[in-house]
Amino acid sequence: MLRFESDYGEGAHPRVLELLAASNLEQTPGYGEDHYCEEARELIRKACSAPDADVHFLVGGTQANFVVIEAALKPWQGALCADNGHINVHETGAVEATGHKVLPLPAHDGKISAEQIREACAEHYADDSHEHMVQPGLVYLSSPTEFGTLYAKEELQAISQACRELGLTLFVDGARMGYGLMSEVNDVTLADFAALCDVFTIGGTKVGALFGEAVVIASPALKKDFRYLMKQRGAMLAKGRLLGLQFLALFQDNLYFRIAKRADELAMRLRQAFTEQGWPLLYDSFTNQQFPIIPDDVLQRLSETYSFSFWQKTDATHSAVRFCASWATTEEAVNQLIADLSNNRA
Amino acid sequence: MLRFESDYGEGAHPRVLELLAASNLEQTPGYGEDHYCEEARELIRKACSAPDADVHFLVGGTQANFVVIEAALKPWQGALCADNGHINVHETGAVEATGHKVLPLPAHDGKISAEQIREACAEHYADDSHEHMVQPGLVYLSSPTEFGTLYAKEELQAISQACRELGLTLFVDGARMGYGLMSEVNDVTLADFAALCDVFTIGGTKVGALFGEAVVIASPALKKDFRYLMKQRGAMLAKGRLLGLQFLALFQDNLYFRIAKRADELAMRLRQAFTEQGWPLLYDSFTNQQFPIIPDDVLQRLSETYSFSFWQKTDATHSAVRFCASWATTEEAVNQLIADLSNNRA
Amino acid sequence: MLRFESDYGEGAHPRVLELLAASNLEQTPGYGEDHYCEEARELIRKACSAPDADVHFLVGGTQANFVVIEAALKPWQGALCADNGHINVHETGAVEATGHKVLPLPAHDGKISAEQIREACAEHYADDSHEHMVQPGLVYLSSPTEFGTLYAKEELQAISQACRELGLTLFVDGARMGYGLMSEVNDVTLADFAALCDVFTIGGTKVGALFGEAVVIASPALKKDFRYLMKQRGAMLAKGRLLGLQFLALFQDNLYFRIAKRADELAMRLRQAFTEQGWPLLYDSFTNQQFPIIPDDVLQRLSETYSFSFWQKTDATHSAVRFCASWATTEEAVNQLIADLSNNRA
Amino acid sequence: MLRFESDYGEGAHPRVLELLAASNLEQTPGYGEDHYCEEARELIRKACSAPDADVHFLVGGTQANFVVIEAALKPWQGALCADNGHINVHETGAVEATGHKVLPLPAHDGKISAEQIREACAEHYADDSHEHMVQPGLVYLSSPTEFGTLYAKEELQAISQACRELGLTLFVDGARMGYGLMSEVNDVTLADFAALCDVFTIGGTKVGALFGEAVVIASPALKKDFRYLMKQRGAMLAKGRLLGLQFLALFQDNLYFRIAKRADELAMRLRQAFTEQGWPLLYDSFTNQQFPIIPDDVLQRLSETYSFSFWQKTDATHSAVRFCASWATTEEAVNQLIADLSNNRA
Repeated sequence: MLRFESDYGEGAHPRVLELLAASNLEQTPGYGEDHYCEEARELIRKACSAPDADVHFLVGGTQANFVVIEAALKPWQGALCADNGHINVHETGAVEATGHKVLPLPAHDGKISAEQIREACAEHYADDSHEHMVQPGLVYLSSPTEFGTLYAKEELQAISQACRELGLTLFVDGARMGYGLMSEVNDVTLADFAALCDVFTIGGTKVGALFGEAVVIASPALKKDFRYLMKQRGAMLAKGRLLGLQFLALFQDNLYFRIAKRADELAMRLRQAFTEQGWPLLYDSFTNQQFPIIPDDVLQRLSETYSFSFWQKTDATHSAVRFCASWATTEEAVNQLIADLSNNRA
Repeated sequence: MLRFESDYGEGAHPRVLELLAASNLEQTPGYGEDHYCEEARELIRKACSAPDADVHFLVGGTQANFVVIEAALKPWQGALCADNGHINVHETGAVEATGHKVLPLPAHDGKISAEQIREACAEHYADDSHEHMVQPGLVYLSSPTEFGTLYAKEELQAISQACRELGLTLFVDGARMGYGLMSEVNDVTLADFAALCDVFTIGGTKVGALFGEAVVIASPALKKDFRYLMKQRGAMLAKGRLLGLQFLALFQDNLYFRIAKRADELAMRLRQAFTEQGWPLLYDSFTNQQFPIIPDDVLQRLSETYSFSFWQKTDATHSAVRFCASWATTEEAVNQLIADLSNNRA
Repeated sequence: MLRFESDYGEGAHPRVLELLAASNLEQTPGYGEDHYCEEARELIRKACSAPDADVHFLVGGTQANFVVIEAALKPWQGALCADNGHINVHETGAVEATGHKVLPLPAHDGKISAEQIREACAEHYADDSHEHMVQPGLVYLSSPTEFGTLYAKEELQAISQACRELGLTLFVDGARMGYGLMSEVNDVTLADFAALCDVFTIGGTKVGALFGEAVVIASPALKKDFRYLMKQRGAMLAKGRLLGLQFLALFQDNLYFRIAKRADELAMRLRQAFTEQGWPLLYDSFTNQQFPIIPDDVLQRLSETYSFSFWQKTDATHSAVRFCASWATTEEAVNQLIADLSNNRA
Repeated sequence: MLRFESDYGEGAHPRVLELLAASNLEQTPGYGEDHYCEEARELIRKACSAPDADVHFLVGGTQANFVVIEAALKPWQGALCADNGHINVHETGAVEATGHKVLPLPAHDGKISAEQIREACAEHYADDSHEHMVQPGLVYLSSPTEFGTLYAKEELQAISQACRELGLTLFVDGARMGYGLMSEVNDVTLADFAALCDVFTIGGTKVGALFGEAVVIASPALKKDFRYLMKQRGAMLAKGRLLGLQFLALFQDNLYFRIAKRADELAMRLRQAFTEQGWPLLYDSFTNQQFPIIPDDVLQRLSETYSFSFWQKTDATHSAVRFCASWATTEEAVNQLIADLSNNRA
């Protein structure tokens, strides 16, 4: 079985494991105050051209999302996001569990626009009863989105501008950040994220680490005492260096970017192969996740050799599925799949 | 100015004030443990044909809603409700502030159906990732809805049946309960609510009291220790008898029902008058709130003599507005408005 | 039975009821945006010599306490208070229910000192693991305390100074504010509270109103959007004018101060009578609550004619009890009790 | 520098790393639904003689504590625990952040007794105002405590009996469970914990794992839907197998017990050496943590060669410090320290 169903089904890039093993007997301070964390922070600050940013390492994405959002919001504020955004649909109400309503906006290709954000705020304050409604306090985006799509620099600039005018915190969930940065259509850099957002994450779990999300805080208002909240919410790892050294491994020699680029390239080859079969794509993704709509009988045959994720039925005889590439995907597997497709063997 | 803009703009029915004054110098235990509360509870139990129900008196509707919902839900559960339901749009995220997501369903005339509830649960459990989503735990209805519409007995029975099969708590917000019960199209009694729901409220604030909502708990599972939660959430009035004696005044001699019936009848006269003008109704309400769609120039003239609430623009030259009748609405005011309408003086 | 057991067992001062009745048929905007609330706010600002203060009216004390504390604190902060303070022992964990730990300090006569506050903060920040502990964020005092004792101006100034240096919000719970202000030993004015505190309450429930606490916000940082939180937490009364007009009645012609002064004077007469019997006082209170320690057999006889609250056993044959005076206490009752005591008829 | 300052300063036992490396390229389902987790669960159930227990793997101890406590409590309930218990002093109010008050009882050697628990409940319900106070709902113990002390089987049985009579959930935090089980004075087995507690944890972080706590749920009432809460609180690891395979490594061939036993034995040698110097012990610990009280000048000399944790000043010239042994402590280091002590070279 050749596996394409997920980008976080394996362990970690070998370099990560090597560093874990090499440092194993060293005794260091806990809770992220060790030298590995400090070195990793410094590399990330450099990669973001953000020498003043605070960088924290958290274990998981849901955790990073609700800790950041709770830190940013007043009790009566909520988080604007795409209606199919991860915090709205796939985190078991983690944001609400901190007391804050998620305020969904209709998504297009998994994205929302500056105009939607402006309208939501304008409508809120125009209502005589706005004190009876949750006040927008933060904008949550994911880029890449859960559907592989990306915010263009122009879109992000417009959203950033809107947030600053409206007093909203801008937070980008970068669980698949690497695959976005290295996409052939991407025009946003880490430095852009640091300049345009108040806070964003650089995901490790799906891009070569065993686990771990780096939270990069650019906004001075969010920096103070963030570690208290991490501890309170169970998001401060005792042996914090495990996070630091994973990001150290990933950000040395640009490993993070190289493995993401390779995965994107493999995914682009899959995209082309699907297109050549005449199969439409559910989302127009140029990142590591591809969502072809494939006849169900073909899927049946494919599933004997290849694993992939069922996404949704699109009509009586077709389904959208997800194929992922990651650091663990082999060229051989991709070659074989493409060959099978072009030979109608699938 | 003759006022129709709200059903809670005045104080209380004179009988309520009389009882407040008559009892003023009496010293009683606090926190709802006085004899007035006990008598009022007994009258309400009788009115509901529910001798075993627990009855608690809370000051306001938002308070009653979130205390009941918090009492009923596990931390990972949410409340299904109409997307335009009060808890979803007009309580500043009070339910989310207790940690629970509101799970909105598309409303029709302010209502949701047993089928929608069944589908929502079926979809939830059919999803492989249901543990990553908020689990439906309670159904919140309002009857009358915020738009004056009512659940028919058949609809309520179907919802009750669905909730029992699915393990959901059924909670009906009766902020305007009186106006629903006495509506000419209503076929649901207080005894039906007690039999079909786990918990419901009988609103005082909008039906003759200064303030106060009676929470009627039919479900044994919800009864235990409810008063602890009331105290914790600031919902246990120190001089609790103020609530008890208001409900005592309202439920003696059927005052609650008589004033609601009179208000409904006045509203039906308004409804007929609007209809005779050829003005459509935004919602098909047979209760004390009426939502005619009226030409803007007519509204302009009306507003010189009558107060009403703006609801929404319906097209370039028309708006929906709300006219309310209550215990405080005079027949004279209604007569004059109808006369003005029929004489085209409005 | 002559009643001394509580200062909130009766209804309201007659002037309050009169104003309720006189305004009953008036239709006003809801939620505290009516002219009665505005007039009452203005009177309170004047009484506090605080023209820029924000004044909000909430129904109850527990509610006022947790809403204020939640508004002031970051998620990882807690409230320093006396270990026997109301928020720590008698509000069913209302503060914790908003996510914040109460940080108790050992009380002396119900009070804590500037020095204790400074030490608590010094210890917190001296600990290497302070990020693993709740950060002090606010100081909660009550004055009078639950035991009738008062903070002297000098004590309050020292606490205020400490709070400002340490970045702590200072909040005074004035549920019995009137009885403190008018005490013969008091040297703190409402203007002092407004100058020294960030926020404090002026209690109505125990000083002549049916219910109601005025929250006076002096600190600009706490003012913004406070009403959103009130609504979210069920603390915004629909017919908000009911609160406004009660405080209007109480602050017109200094009624609030006059009824408190009279109650304090009656309590001082009781204090003297208890002392003349040779009975010690559990707390050295110069306000409306008195806590004599009385032989149990005397209490037995007293209880046939007089009601009072049992407080605690002090030894095998004595108990401390509470006698309260309020606006509703009659001179006749006090005279008779004193006469009975001096004639050994009790 | 020979290091004794912590039992979680290094990485993991080599067997853990080996299994991580060996499984690295395998693709498995996420979120704890893989075969490694299942095998580890089965081994733990066997070790606990609890075939029906549910076993979940969480990343950290704070996380495990608040998720378990939140799952067990009603909103108005709190957790009884030792005043120096971890949840009360070193988790930044994590329990309060879920809305629940921690109810501290005075600890003796870090422990509380069945009698204290019974008294706390009796006092609660004896108070007329108990609805105004937080209701005890759960008992939190740690064994070993933070001070290395242990609950004897008789103590635990008495507490379990009390909890069952009083309707309290009994939760034991076993962050250092291994060191307790293998202590020469211990008489409690994992099977005892499973039989006497509703839920307990088996700590990995401090006993050979990189990270990870196994939550063992014996009580049927706590089992249902626990994974929803894990997900909501950020406690469901995406690559859940990382937890499963660590516990698999630790529970194969009794590794967990063997490394804990060895650490306890090294600690006992240290204990004896300290005692032979005439140095008292702050706590009477027979587990891997030792707390000798040592002259400050000796500590100064020791600190040139050995690392340890400062605990507290005990008088002007002495301090209590902590020496820990773990799987990573070498016999050579222990031998050298003992030799230095006996030669007065320290």
